[in-house]
This record gives sequence, C-alpha cells and structure tokens, in this order.
Amino acid sequence: MGISLGPNQYGKAEVRLVTVDRQGPVHHLKDLTVSTSLRGRLERTHLTGDNADVVATDTQKNTVYAFAKDGVGEIEDFALRLATHFTGSFEHITGARILISEHGWNRIAVGGTPHDHAFSRAGDEERTTAVTVHDGKAWIVSGITGLTVLKSTGSEFHGFPRDEYTTLAETEDRILATAVTARWRYGRADGINWSESYDAIRRALLETFATKHSLSLQQTLYAMGEAVLEARPEVAEVRLSLPNKHHFLVDLSPFGLANENEVFYAADRPYGLIEGTVIRDDAEDSGLAWYSLPEF
Amino acid sequence: MGISLGPNQYGKAEVRLVTVDRQGPVHHLKDLTVSTSLRGRLERTHLTGDNADVVATDTQKNTVYAFAKDGVGEIEDFALRLATHFTGSFEHITGARILISEHGWNRIAVGGTPHDHAFSRAGDEERTTAVTVHDGKAWIVSGITGLTVLKSTGSEFHGFPRDEYTTLAETEDRILATAVTARWRYGRADGINWSESYDAIRRALLETFATKHSLSLQQTLYAMGEAVLEARPEVAEVRLSLPNKHHFLVDLSPFGLANENEVFYAADRPYGLIEGTVIRDDAEDSGLAWYSLPEF
Amino acid sequence: MGISLGPNQYGKAEVRLVTVDRQGPVHHLKDLTVSTSLRGRLERTHLTGDNADVVATDTQKNTVYAFAKDGVGEIEDFALRLATHFTGSFEHITGARILISEHGWNRIAVGGTPHDHAFSRAGDEERTTAVTVHDGKAWIVSGITGLTVLKSTGSEFHGFPRDEYTTLAETEDRILATAVTARWRYGRADGINWSESYDAIRRALLETFATKHSLSLQQTLYAMGEAVLEARPEVAEVRLSLPNKHHFLVDLSPFGLANENEVFYAADRPYGLIEGTVIRDDAEDSGLAWYSLPEF
Amino acid sequence: MGISLGPNQYGKAEVRLVTVDRQGPVHHLKDLTVSTSLRGRLERTHLTGDNADVVATDTQKNTVYAFAKDGVGEIEDFALRLATHFTGSFEHITGARILISEHGWNRIAVGGTPHDHAFSRAGDEERTTAVTVHDGKAWIVSGITGLTVLKSTGSEFHGFPRDEYTTLAETEDRILATAVTARWRYGRADGINWSESYDAIRRALLETFATKHSLSLQQTLYAMGEAVLEARPEVAEVRLSLPNKHHFLVDLSPFGLANENEVFYAADRPYGLIEGTVIRDDAEDSGLAWYSLPEF
Repeated sequence: MGISLGPNQYGKAEVRLVTVDRQGPVHHLKDLTVSTSLRGRLERTHLTGDNADVVATDTQKNTVYAFAKDGVGEIEDFALRLATHFTGSFEHITGARILISEHGWNRIAVGGTPHDHAFSRAGDEERTTAVTVHDGKAWIVSGITGLTVLKSTGSEFHGFPRDEYTTLAETEDRILATAVTARWRYGRADGINWSESYDAIRRALLETFATKHSLSLQQTLYAMGEAVLEARPEVAEVRLSLPNKHHFLVDLSPFGLANENEVFYAADRPYGLIEGTVIRDDAEDSGLAWYSLPEF
Repeated sequence: MGISLGPNQYGKAEVRLVTVDRQGPVHHLKDLTVSTSLRGRLERTHLTGDNADVVATDTQKNTVYAFAKDGVGEIEDFALRLATHFTGSFEHITGARILISEHGWNRIAVGGTPHDHAFSRAGDEERTTAVTVHDGKAWIVSGITGLTVLKSTGSEFHGFPRDEYTTLAETEDRILATAVTARWRYGRADGINWSESYDAIRRALLETFATKHSLSLQQTLYAMGEAVLEARPEVAEVRLSLPNKHHFLVDLSPFGLANENEVFYAADRPYGLIEGTVIRDDAEDSGLAWYSLPEF
Repeated sequence: MGISLGPNQYGKAEVRLVTVDRQGPVHHLKDLTVSTSLRGRLERTHLTGDNADVVATDTQKNTVYAFAKDGVGEIEDFALRLATHFTGSFEHITGARILISEHGWNRIAVGGTPHDHAFSRAGDEERTTAVTVHDGKAWIVSGITGLTVLKSTGSEFHGFPRDEYTTLAETEDRILATAVTARWRYGRADGINWSESYDAIRRALLETFATKHSLSLQQTLYAMGEAVLEARPEVAEVRLSLPNKHHFLVDLSPFGLANENEVFYAADRPYGLIEGTVIRDDAEDSGLAWYSLPEF
Repeated sequence: MGISLGPNQYGKAEVRLVTVDRQGPVHHLKDLTVSTSLRGRLERTHLTGDNADVVATDTQKNTVYAFAKDGVGEIEDFALRLATHFTGSFEHITGARILISEHGWNRIAVGGTPHDHAFSRAGDEERTTAVTVHDGKAWIVSGITGLTVLKSTGSEFHGFPRDEYTTLAETEDRILATAVTARWRYGRADGINWSESYDAIRRALLETFATKHSLSLQQTLYAMGEAVLEARPEVAEVRLSLPNKHHFLVDLSPFGLANENEVFYAADRPYGLIEGTVIRDDAEDSGLAWYSLPEF
C-alpha cells in the first residue's frame, strides 16, 4: 500500500495591516487583512521535516509589512506584487495565492467638513481580492462581502412543488433580505482600473437587487450576476452566495390584530442559502483562479 | 443557617423585531433587538415552583410584537410603553427594564436617487436604550455602541511613571483608535426629542474625538463626555467605555527601511480599556437607572 | 453649570498568558486570560492629559507576564498578588480589580495513558475569578461560565398567568437547557483551598441541575444556589445567570407523524433569561466585591 | 455576447435538530446541525422566476425533521437517507449534498454515576459529514473540527531559508498548538461502521500529534494523515487544515528574569496556516466528493 502527499499549501493568515499616507496634511488610510499561501515542491518538509524549502510564515508576514512601506495602492496590485515576489524568489515555490480584505473608513465630518486625519469605520462590508500566480501566469478574483440588503416589498415566492413535507404558504409579497458575498473573476490581470471596476460592480449589484422584481432569490441572483457582466467587459464570471435572511410575518391574530406585512421577526437559523454562477459564454478557462477558494 | 433569595429578574432576551411602515409608497424600516426583564415579588416560583406570578417570557415576547403593530416610534418611547404595560398589568410585577438596540439601514441609491423600499445595512453601529420603570417612576439611559473611530495623528502618550516593569516608549505621535460604547442618563423621562438628542450627542462624540488633541485616551474620554453635557442640558451623566485598539508601529529597520508612522499592525488582544463617567454636579440621584446595566 | 469626573477605571484587557511548569518530565499547563483595572486619584490625566499617575496599561501587561515567571498557582492567588502589587506600588492607585478566566486542557491519552506534554482543549467552560483590592481590603468573587447543560425530562412549566398576549401551552414534560454562568462571593479572602472549593461548587451545580425536578427555571436556579451555600460555608452569596436555551417540539402532525417529545429544534434567539441571587442571611456586606462586574 | 447560468446549488443551511431517544429510562441524545443543498436543472427559476422545480428550502427543513422521527442513527446514514430522498423524489433534482455537524454531550455524573437524562456539553469539537449523491452514486467525506491540541515540547523549527525579510530565530524547543480540521474521504459508501471508524481516526490523529516529534507543522500534518490511512483501510484520502496557533515566548529579560520556555503569550492573529492532503496511491477518483467543500 502506497501513501503519498497530495495538494498542499501553507502561509500566514490574517496579517492585519494599516497604512497611513502622510504625504500631505490630508491623511489617507488603508486597512487590510492579508493572507498569504505558498505552493510548490514541498515534499521534504512534509516527509522528513527538512525545512530548506519552507519560506517561514513569519518571513511572509514581514514581507507584507516591508512591501507596504512603498504604499499599498489597489489591493489587486499589492497582492500581485506579493505573489510575484514569492514565486520569483524561491526555487521550489512555484505558486502563491494572496487573499486581501479591505475594511472601509469614512472621514469624520466636523461642522460638515471631512476631517483631515479622523475617521470612522464604514461597517462590515469588505472589498476582497484573491490573486493567484503560478508559473508566471496570474489570475484575479475580486469580490465584496458583508453587503447586507433588504427590500420590504417587490418579492414573491410561489409555484414551487408541494409534496407531503411542504407546509410553506405561497406569498405574493414578502421581505427579501440577504448578505451578499460576490466574487468575480477578471478576464485578464492587467490594464484594469480596479477601483473604478469595483465601484461599478458594487453599484450594479445594489441597483439590480433594488429594482429587479423578484419571483425567487435565484432569479435575483442571476439578474445581479448578469448586470455585472453586462456592465463590465473585463469580468468573465461572477459567483454569488446569498443567504436568505428570513423575515417571518408574526401571527398577531391571537391578539385580535391583523398583520398586513408590517411586523416581522428576523430569524437567525436556519436560513436558505442560494449559490450560483453567472458566466460569459466566451470566458477563458478559469485555470487556477478559484483553486482553494470557496466554490461560491 | 438561613439562606434566602436576593435580587433577581427574568425576561425574554434578544427579540428580533423588524417593522415596515407601509402607509405610503415610501416604506420606513425599523430593525430592533428588544430584551425585557421583569422584577417583583417572585419568591414563590423560586422557592416552590408555583408560577402564578410568572408572566411567561413567551408572553413578554408576544407583547413586544403586538405593541409593534401600532408603530414603534422612538425606541425610548417604545420601551416606556412596554415597561409601563408590564408593571401596570400584573400585581406582583413591580419593576421592568427594557433594553433596545436599533440597527441602522440606509436607502439604496438607484441612479443617485434613494429607493422607496430597498435598503442596505449601515454597519455595526447601534443606537441603544435601557428604560427602567419601578413604582411609577421611570429612568432612561440611552446610548451608542459599535462606533469605531481612528485618528492617524493628534495623539501623544508620555509622562507616565516608569517602574521595573515598564518598557513602553513615550510617543508624541501615535494612532488613536477605539470602538465607542457610550451610555447617557437623561435627567427626565418626558418632553425630550429622542432622535434629535441622539443625533446631537453622536455628533458631539465624533467631533470631539476628531478635534481634541489627545495626551491620553482618558483625556479624550473626559472631553467627549463633557462635550455631550455641554451640548445637551437634558443629559445628566455620560458613561464611556473605550477600548484602546492598539495600532503598533512595525519595526522595518531589519529590512533597511524607516517607518515614519506609515505602517502599523492592528492588534486584537490585549487592549487597553479606559472606562469613566462624566457627570453634571447638580444631577439628581441615579436611582435604578443603571441597575443591572454594565457599569461603564 | 459644573461638570466633573465620576467613577472610572482603566487597565489592560485580555492578556493571554500560557505557562508551562517544566520542573519534571510531566509538564503542567496553565492557560489564562487576565484583565487588570486600576482605580484611584486619576483626575489629572482626565482633565489635563498629565499622565504622572497613569501606570501604563503596557506596564500592567508586563507585570502579569513577569509575575507568571514565579508560577501562577491558583487564579485567585495570582489575582491577589497582582492587585496587591498595583495598589501597593503607586501612590495614587488606591484600588485594583483583576479578572482571570482559566481555560481547561486535558492530557491526550496515548494507548490509554495520559501523555506527559500533549494536551487537548477541554471545551468552552471556564473557571473565573474577579479579585478587588481597595485600601488594604480584598474581595474575591469566583465563578464558572460556559457550562452548558440539558435535561431531556424532569422539567415542567405551567400555572403561569394568562392574559390577552399569552399563547404558550402549559407543559408537564419539556427539555430544559441552559448555559450556566455562576459567580460566588467568598466570605473571606484567605485560608481557602480554591481548587477544592471550585470543584465542589461545580459538582453541586451540576448534580442539582440533574436531580432537582423543575417546575420553573427560577426554581432550578434557586436550588442550585442553595446547594452551593449548603455545601460550602466559605461562600457568602451566589449569583446565577441562566439563559433558557429553548428546545421547541417540532410539529410533525402535517406529515402524519406524532412527536412524543422526540424531535426538537434548538432555537438561538430570543431566549428566556433568568437571573438571581441566593444569599446567606448572615453574609457580610458585599462592599466592592461586585463593583463593575455584571450584576448577575 | 452570451451570458449563461453556471454551476449552482441551493438549500437550507444550519437546521438545528435535537432528538431524544426515550425508549427506556436511559435517554439518548443527538444534537445536529444539518445543511441541505440541491442541484439539478434549475435554469427556469434563475432565468424566469418559474419555481416549478424549486423544492422550497422550507420543505427541505421539514423533511429533515420528519425523517428524524424514525431515529437519526449515524450522521452518515442520516445524510444518505436525506440525499437519496431528495434526488429520488423530484424530477429535476439530480444531486444533493448534505452537511451534518454533530455536537457532543456527556452524561452528568451524580454521586459518580452517569445520570439517565441529564447532560453537559462536551465542548467545541464536532464530528462532521458531507454526503453527496448524484445520479445514483454516493460519496462520503467525514471529519472532525474544533479539536484543539497543544504540546509543550517535542517541536522544533529550523533550517528554513533566510532572505532579507527573515527575522525569525531558529528554535529547538517550542510550543506547538493547532485546532485540527480534518476531512477524510471514504473509499466506499456502505458496509462501514461509521462510529468505530470515527473513533479510531480521532485516536490516530491525537496519538500522532502527541507522539510524533515535530520538525515542522507540515511534518506533523503528514504524519497525522498517514496514521489515519494506515489504521483505516476504508479511508482513501485525508485533508487537514492546521492553523499554527502561535505561543510566543515572552521576553522577560528587561525585568531581569530568564524565560526558559515557561511563560508564553498566545497570539490570535496572524497565524500560520498549514493545509495538505495525504492520499492512498490507489485511491479511486474523488468524483464529486469534495465539490463545493473547503479545499482543505
């Protein structure tokens, strides 16, 4: 019987990095969580404990901080710099995947004017990227997470099959709420204005959620993905994971009250979970773009 | 040896309530988490299991939902309605404390215009209230939590005592960051425009954090509390709990780089924790206002 | 109008400390989270930013680590050492409160034999202490948290008042589950075998929960507190916070099935929350023992 | 330009199910979290909102509860029953994936004797399974998560490459700690005693962690996977995700103290993350076994 090492990777997870651009009196803040993973010919450390090929995860962390000294810029570019460095600097490291989450901050308004160096956190929403470099090729999957949205009407759900276990009533007016996790694969790794692309995609997701009359969360998911692809030619594919954050109508009839879609309880668990991909027909093969990322 | 029952309370915690005001085409959303606690002559259930005085926590939950049918309004008013109901309706229930957290939502902008019925979550920040009613008297302690703020300069820390365990360097320029939890006791329970008061207090906290040059987080805390009391005569007392969310300068010298307050790592634990009270000299005794709330 | 500084404290929260006693081949592990708070004449830093009296929270952290070098021992003793040091070493620091949580580890069994130096985490349960020293007097409040228990029968709930908002059915057989948080105040600060006391209290809580036939969670709470006081003369008072972790019977009748207390769904929120105190009649006044701790 | 629907799935996540086997005076408890996902020809709901093929996630939840009435048994068998039902009952549902986590409970000891119907939670550790059924074929990937382990000696790390960003000191004696997430793919879906297999695998993981002298966490990972494959012929492949929960030696030298591997601080973030696969050479192709699961 033979046993052997299969696919593997290792790195430093959740390096918390905050940079301040102090070139002028108006400071600029970047707040990132960076995770690095390296891949390659790593049999020796696994089989014998010989670490000659193991770039220490502490070294990976140091590299993140040292590279930040020159300015972080867009997270996609920073991740590419890091991935290219690791794969180019060590003989047996042939691949790298860099995950970055960017946490937003707003300037505090003082007397209505944005302050030069005081900020407040913008909430749970995060801009993300997952950059993979392998054998000189790069893949970029960027995304958004923690974007929680709700519409108080404009959502129906009916026409689903009824079997012996079905008790759900059909509805022509329900609250629809979800916390969007979206990831989109770019068709290329250069020549893209990452910020502009992100802003436009975020807007397409939000506007489609708001305006698309919904007969199912699946329909909303597809429409959101389609809107992104229609708006941004640089995107080859969008994957969405949409928890259905149920808001159940409270039965007020025992108290002699009607509830005309006014009073709801927001449930934690269980929740529906709708996951899917919307893809351009002529998209190039995704290669390693999604490897070891969540499927949706 | 005698053993007896001391202070006690019971209720339903974390009732998740979402209401939609659908009176016109523009919907209005309220998203609350409500916790009720009742107090009174409750020896019987504790000592013998006789529940004749125990308003079931399920009934408390139902009451929250039924009362929401008439509209929630300001959280302070909704809590007062609930507390007054419970203490007025059951012979042995002599006190009630209602905690409410309000979660914010913004309208989604579609083509630059706020949408009628589509919303996105505003982040972790919550507006809170803790209303206590006992023997016909009411106390209101409102607050804010999850307000995370950071200033990238304008903060020093030096002049502290040095003993054999002191290694911290003095600094004349550091990042100062905290997640504000503030609670303020109102001097009276009626005749207050709760929303206006909240907005003004939130603004005073933020503007003071931004503009007060800080020699210690304690100094910032006091200035923030003082600003609230100066701005709002209806407030008798402010209590603040300010974790010092440390951002440590990364030592880049091993890599031949200078770090001129540009690259930081944001630490999770441990963290400084600064807690204090700022109070009006002529404030009435706080009575039961703070009973069973966090001290700061 | 006068405004002034009220009660306050500051310190370092959540210092993660792990010690290994390596005096023999069999290692002994301590895994603690320590939070320190100092109190005193701290007006200067609050009002002017003069930090001459502010023992830096970084120094507090260093002191925790330095003191651990001599061995931690029982958490109550370690907290007393720290509190006594801080109040004895700085002129304007007149009080200290030290919180410690101890996280349990079990030895890994290899071939049935406990290993000398390999351990596995024992779960969420934590042994806690809160030690306060002020003006030479000490108070000890120890406790347990995260002790989740469930009984699948032996619990009833009926006889509660029914008003217009009551829909809950009476039951003579339900699941009763809770996550016990208990804190007990010791009547004195010395001459106590802390470990033995803790073990006996934990056993009294568990055995009472298991064997007391329950007509309400309040009755169970009182019985648990009473059992502790009866078993341990060194304890003056017990405070318990017991969330009622509801397990609701699933209605299987739409599927033509009876559910004879066999199939339940475990709900997250909302939950009942039962809080109370059981106290010895001749208990000395609690002084500062509970100051700034949760009420229950 | 064409846009189309790519891979997708949907279902009900985190159904909390607790069952009590009350056939005799000694009750038996099962505490599960079940997530269902269905796959198939689901274009209609995505493209048009026609839900004729959409088995409602509420129906999926009901089915979980109804099936539990007959007894849950081993989680692998329960998941297989559910997956087979869904794929066999609806024309356009061609695949199903069922995730189950089992939460452990111990009997409370009363006077040294295990109680018939009172239990305490066994901690964070969970037994898991992910069962996939597609076109009549079944794949079983079971696992363990939340198994936190630590060894206080018997771990070295040296010989790693040093570049300009390397500052880590080599060590011949460090604490090694991790929270094991392991998933193993069974080579077949029937004829396996799931409980016995689980217990043996858990023991192999623990004993190997304890006894394998470690030159790197990668070496420990491989040894753990290899031990599982050597012990259990029914397992084709093991995937492990091992966060390196760093315990850093505290520098006590500023206080005039030596720290001979006695006093550590346990860091939260960042952490090393070592992920890998150990596989039997003659393992059958994994098919859909891992589809949409975490890679490691």
